[in-house]
Amino acid sequence: MSSDTWLSKINWSEDGLIPVIAQEAGSGKVLMVAWMNRDALKLTVEKGEAVYWSRSRKKLWHKGEKSSHTQKVKEIYLDCDEDVLLLIVEQTGGIACHTGRHSCFFQKLEGNEWIVAAPVVKNPEEIYSK
Amino acid sequence: MSSDTWLSKINWSEDGLIPVIAQEAGSGKVLMVAWMNRDALKLTVEKGEAVYWSRSRKKLWHKGEKSSHTQKVKEIYLDCDEDVLLLIVEQTGGIACHTGRHSCFFQKLEGNEWIVAAPVVKNPEEIYSK
Repeated sequence: MSSDTWLSKINWSEDGLIPVIAQEAGSGKVLMVAWMNRDALKLTVEKGEAVYWSRSRKKLWHKGEKSSHTQKVKEIYLDCDEDVLLLIVEQTGGIACHTGRHSCFFQKLEGNEWIVAAPVVKNPEEIYSK
Repeated sequence: MSSDTWLSKINWSEDGLIPVIAQEAGSGKVLMVAWMNRDALKLTVEKGEAVYWSRSRKKLWHKGEKSSHTQKVKEIYLDCDEDVLLLIVEQTGGIACHTGRHSCFFQKLEGNEWIVAAPVVKNPEEIYSK
């Protein structure tokens, strides 16, 4: 079996991408959703750290390359339709979000308003100035 | 404030959709990913049960309408880019996947193979024959 057969099992989108959920090991917290292409997923497996495809910058994005908030990948799951990945990760620094929060999912629906439901752990200016 | 302002905060895709993660309350298990349009999200909030948009059938899909495996929605979160939703749900029957498994994320990468890492809780023929 070719060593890339596992990559071909994935139902890549027309753009050659797949959405990826990063979930924190232990806490079970859903941290973020990003995208991968084949290269990103291969690199993720090789490095043991999450490498995404930045759709805005159109380039590979080794999560934490600027913030140092890397994600150590413990487990990788594929869903029944083979079009979504779930990564179980250890989140370095306890911050996944570019706003300096633990998780990107910090806006909670209360009645008909989105309220900010999680604190900034570290000021983004401090995170990205290094 | 219009009662629909909260819906306009969302960055809907060009197709008017948003991906939605359903995570189980308590266990923290990521159960599935599906899509919603505006109507689906409004209905979800009104009913307190997950209503998705089926991209294959191009219609609203009240999760559990055939299987009886509804999802009672406890909390709704929106991410920092406002383009992914996270639902915290109680999964009726403990089965979210059409294969009869607890979660749709049952294929685990081991080396360079996807292995089936979760059992079928109930035979799908039994689930959908009712």
